[in-house]
Amino acid sequence: MVKNLESLGLRHERGKLLILDQQLLPREERWLECKTPDHMISAIKALKVRGAPLIGVAAAVSLARYALDGASPEQIRDAAKGLRAARPTAVNLMAACDRMVLNHAQVPTAEELARMAEEIFDEDVALCLKIGEQGAALIQDGEGILTHCNSGGLATAGIGTAFGILRRAHDQGKKIHVYADETRPLLQGARLTAWELGKLGIPYTLICDNMAAMVMSQGKVQRIFTGADRIAANGDAANKIGTYSLAVLAQYHRVPFYIAAPYTTVDKNCPTGAQIPIEERDADEVRDGRAPLDARVFNPAFDVTPRQLITDLILA
Amino acid sequence: MVKNLESLGLRHERGKLLILDQQLLPREERWLECKTPDHMISAIKALKVRGAPLIGVAAAVSLARYALDGASPEQIRDAAKGLRAARPTAVNLMAACDRMVLNHAQVPTAEELARMAEEIFDEDVALCLKIGEQGAALIQDGEGILTHCNSGGLATAGIGTAFGILRRAHDQGKKIHVYADETRPLLQGARLTAWELGKLGIPYTLICDNMAAMVMSQGKVQRIFTGADRIAANGDAANKIGTYSLAVLAQYHRVPFYIAAPYTTVDKNCPTGAQIPIEERDADEVRDGRAPLDARVFNPAFDVTPRQLITDLILA
Repeated sequence: MVKNLESLGLRHERGKLLILDQQLLPREERWLECKTPDHMISAIKALKVRGAPLIGVAAAVSLARYALDGASPEQIRDAAKGLRAARPTAVNLMAACDRMVLNHAQVPTAEELARMAEEIFDEDVALCLKIGEQGAALIQDGEGILTHCNSGGLATAGIGTAFGILRRAHDQGKKIHVYADETRPLLQGARLTAWELGKLGIPYTLICDNMAAMVMSQGKVQRIFTGADRIAANGDAANKIGTYSLAVLAQYHRVPFYIAAPYTTVDKNCPTGAQIPIEERDADEVRDGRAPLDARVFNPAFDVTPRQLITDLILA
Repeated sequence: MVKNLESLGLRHERGKLLILDQQLLPREERWLECKTPDHMISAIKALKVRGAPLIGVAAAVSLARYALDGASPEQIRDAAKGLRAARPTAVNLMAACDRMVLNHAQVPTAEELARMAEEIFDEDVALCLKIGEQGAALIQDGEGILTHCNSGGLATAGIGTAFGILRRAHDQGKKIHVYADETRPLLQGARLTAWELGKLGIPYTLICDNMAAMVMSQGKVQRIFTGADRIAANGDAANKIGTYSLAVLAQYHRVPFYIAAPYTTVDKNCPTGAQIPIEERDADEVRDGRAPLDARVFNPAFDVTPRQLITDLILA
């Protein structure tokens, strides 16, 4: 790689690709080296690296690193296929693997792959800034803003998507107060969004997902912003489980509800939300060491919000 | 006490009042002796004994036990005042303390208190059965039923309120499938309702609170039943946080939404839900050892569902 890459959750420096283990946050900030795409696939599956835009970037850098370390075209193609399947809902991951390797009849050279990975990284940073500007323009001074899951510096290569909007509004000097849904079962809101908000000094209140309706009914929320993992051609959007619930509650309480994402999240080959595959994850994530060990569980990682419940899609 | 009292979460036998520590369930079934009303107050505050009907019963038995152990009228009156204030939202607790002691100019004798405590216990058992019959009549064979928190044998002296309805329907041979909300932050659904359902062999699926909307949108839920901690004169109902959210989601998905409770939960002196005091609990319940230690938190234990979102109140 010609230059170092550095974001809140991913670094490429001195020939090493490192990711911040997001499962350990906020208690511990431990960086893991991903020496091969296989390491990266495991890290993606275990949500050590997560966020639809960031896993696309991470896959791209991982493929470039693998090539620079001498992997054969055959190995690179296999790795691209493996990475592409690591999470079935996020489309950025598939788009990155296709763009880097699978769309080409011949596997590009290591130098070409390195250049493309840098491009994908830089592009994500730039798209976050554009989304941030666009979204922040909607926010008035003094508003309460609710968000779900984590769509920040830990989910992208840049300032984030929905989170980037809050960050820009705060940087513009608007006094906002963020309500962060904890986001069960994996608590990306409680662990990651709260951590990022605290680091940036943005005032926030952490709530359980089931408190959002009450907070809305008390008039404390003027807008809701979330990210997306895949947006169908008709505008239906898959995002972290609980997003659809928020969209229904927002409509009832007449709170504008926005979904923000880079264009890499849009899947033009997917006509509607009904065609988006929804990843189901392990029951133990929900049991969480506290439910009966044999409890039957339903654990979809995402849900689909139909376009008509979304006030506006903020795309860049 | 003339006779032994025994329910899933409370026993009075051989001069001892015992409660099952509900904070340790389902991992451990440990019975704690409550020797004095002060013990009972601590157990109520720590949710070791919980459920609006059961804490009313527990307070009544605790006052009777105290009197039988030789407490003075003065001590009994003070204990009744202390118990009455142990949880601000549940009205059954207040009703029990008033009926046992505070409504009387003179503190009743130990024998009178013992008789009243037995009456309150037996009455709760009978009310649960009546609620169960009434509610079960609504359920059709093959229905999916969603419930929130725990309103079962652990929340009452009998078969439960909302939970008792599911139990009766199951006992009547109707094939039902229960969706149990885990109920953050204290997971009464995941820990207690799942445990009770498993014990009774009623098929169920545990979900996170933020998955209820998706399950409804998939047509898997035909009815929702929850209990209540206080019902205002106009029918607005306070219940475990997340209930209001469910009621809004139920209306959107056209799923009938019922609240079931004994008449002791109705507070005729409270004109509407706006006058029900909502207990706020410790931030660490939401932080749960995983959010930043300094995260600001909003942790209301209950919310209020307006009467117009409730298809029917099932009262006995």
